[in-house]
Amino acid sequence: MYSPKELQEKVNSEIAGLTHLKRTPSELYKPIDYALQNGGKRLRPVLTLMGCNLFSEDVAIALKPSVAFEIFHNFTLLHDDIMDNAPIRRNQPTVHSKWNTNIAILSGDAMLVIAYDLLSDIPDDKLKNVLEVFNRTALEVCEGQQYDMNFETSAVTTENEYLEMIRLKTSVLIAAALNVGALLGDASNEDAAELYRFGINLGLAFQLQDDFLDTYGNSELFGKQIGGDILMNKKTYLLVKTMEMAGKKDLGILKSLLYEEKNPSAKINGVRKIFDNYNINTITERKINEYFSSAMKNMDNIRVSDERKTPLLNFTQNLIRRQT
Amino acid sequence: MYSPKELQEKVNSEIAGLTHLKRTPSELYKPIDYALQNGGKRLRPVLTLMGCNLFSEDVAIALKPSVAFEIFHNFTLLHDDIMDNAPIRRNQPTVHSKWNTNIAILSGDAMLVIAYDLLSDIPDDKLKNVLEVFNRTALEVCEGQQYDMNFETSAVTTENEYLEMIRLKTSVLIAAALNVGALLGDASNEDAAELYRFGINLGLAFQLQDDFLDTYGNSELFGKQIGGDILMNKKTYLLVKTMEMAGKKDLGILKSLLYEEKNPSAKINGVRKIFDNYNINTITERKINEYFSSAMKNMDNIRVSDERKTPLLNFTQNLIRRQT
Repeated sequence: MYSPKELQEKVNSEIAGLTHLKRTPSELYKPIDYALQNGGKRLRPVLTLMGCNLFSEDVAIALKPSVAFEIFHNFTLLHDDIMDNAPIRRNQPTVHSKWNTNIAILSGDAMLVIAYDLLSDIPDDKLKNVLEVFNRTALEVCEGQQYDMNFETSAVTTENEYLEMIRLKTSVLIAAALNVGALLGDASNEDAAELYRFGINLGLAFQLQDDFLDTYGNSELFGKQIGGDILMNKKTYLLVKTMEMAGKKDLGILKSLLYEEKNPSAKINGVRKIFDNYNINTITERKINEYFSSAMKNMDNIRVSDERKTPLLNFTQNLIRRQT
Repeated sequence: MYSPKELQEKVNSEIAGLTHLKRTPSELYKPIDYALQNGGKRLRPVLTLMGCNLFSEDVAIALKPSVAFEIFHNFTLLHDDIMDNAPIRRNQPTVHSKWNTNIAILSGDAMLVIAYDLLSDIPDDKLKNVLEVFNRTALEVCEGQQYDMNFETSAVTTENEYLEMIRLKTSVLIAAALNVGALLGDASNEDAAELYRFGINLGLAFQLQDDFLDTYGNSELFGKQIGGDILMNKKTYLLVKTMEMAGKKDLGILKSLLYEEKNPSAKINGVRKIFDNYNINTITERKINEYFSSAMKNMDNIRVSDERKTPLLNFTQNLIRRQT
């Protein structure tokens, strides 16, 4: 069985060798190359390969589809960054700010097509099944992004609405990456479906952890400045859930802090104080653990030996609760 | 065999019944519905169905893939209209001006996914072949759009560069629509490839005719204002080819007319006068006829009876040289 590191290297060398990126015009393909070379953990393709490796020794069959997931993910980042007007991604200028919006739209479009092209490069008898998963997932990711944009302008967002949004925006792609890996590894439909549910729970835990660490993480380990979400008025689980629980007075303070722009640390400390009033750190950690336990139960239900499960379980455990 | 009108009705009723458009959030799907209901000739899906009907009586198999081509085409229009900053399309506000740019980006993305979803709904044994055609074509269309954007800022564009750009931006999709129809109609690979070449030649003739009619058409029949391309400084075949032929003096006049913004009719008449100096109307008509004749030769090479060819030939003849 392969380690995540070995699989990540396979993914990186497959990306480096992509013939698509050698096509012309360079104005279209250079930004794609830039976006794909700009690091990232290769989380989704590694999960595709681990999903495959859980059932089969032959992971080569899943390599191109795994890269399809990475390119799809980066396509969504390219277009989301335009919509969010984000200047920086992974410490580098975003494509639309390094080039321009038109280039970012069109290069993103081409990335989606390249993702489909890589996904199509699998045995005929698996193609329809895999496409079905990918098409449904891709549409759900668009829906998640739309809900996210809707939340920006809506006064109230409930906890359930928020969880459904992150399920669509983040979890389904992680789940689909694992699911497609399993299908290519000749898993039974039941096991592949269980691994999909594992991915949904893992994705929810992962996104909630991201929300948590932005406020309560260790800045050195987290790799981002603490409080960034608070400064940007981002609707995180912490904010949505606190607003749902908060009394009139705290809600008033919270809302007025959204308009605080002169003193960043006063804003972060003020919001965090309200968060603390409602023990949002404990509540969020409990929620993360809930999803993580559900994921572990899903893994229990999968009918392969414990040995085969070990690499994916270790990887998952490293992913969740790394940086607290 | 079916008439184009019957096929157009099949396409329209398939689009009206699309379950995708009933999904939520409505903010994502309403603009898609709007873009698809906003008329158009349904040229590409009708060609898919006619390509299928050329070889087979069962066109039902090609109905969903045909709609995939219509939705893909409209996806490109949505994103191109953002890039071109175009306020109006088919006499209606464009999606990005009726809603906003973010909505137009995301709805366009979802349309591309829906196109793939409809395309995937075909028998397993044809799926890989059809996807191969579609993926290659979709990437080429992106490349064509990029070349078109490059031309806007480049001082000189050659006739060959222009023809390659419209081949990518317009012809390959028309050719692929026909090709996929043929594959679904169980055509031999040779016949399907010949129909693809027919589509390339038809598409080139069609785009050159569009360029021609914008300057030399009958405005009532053409349905658009004559001279629109000239007013917008659009690089058409007429402009590119004239600039290639023009002497220093005419080139100077032509370039200074590009900056004329106060008097539209002086601009149109001035540019047209230079065009006339080089007989660009005759040259363009000759080029259209050349491509049209090549298309007819491609059709000759296809091994089905003349009777089966009649509807597609009539449709093609109506398409080219309608409005002179």
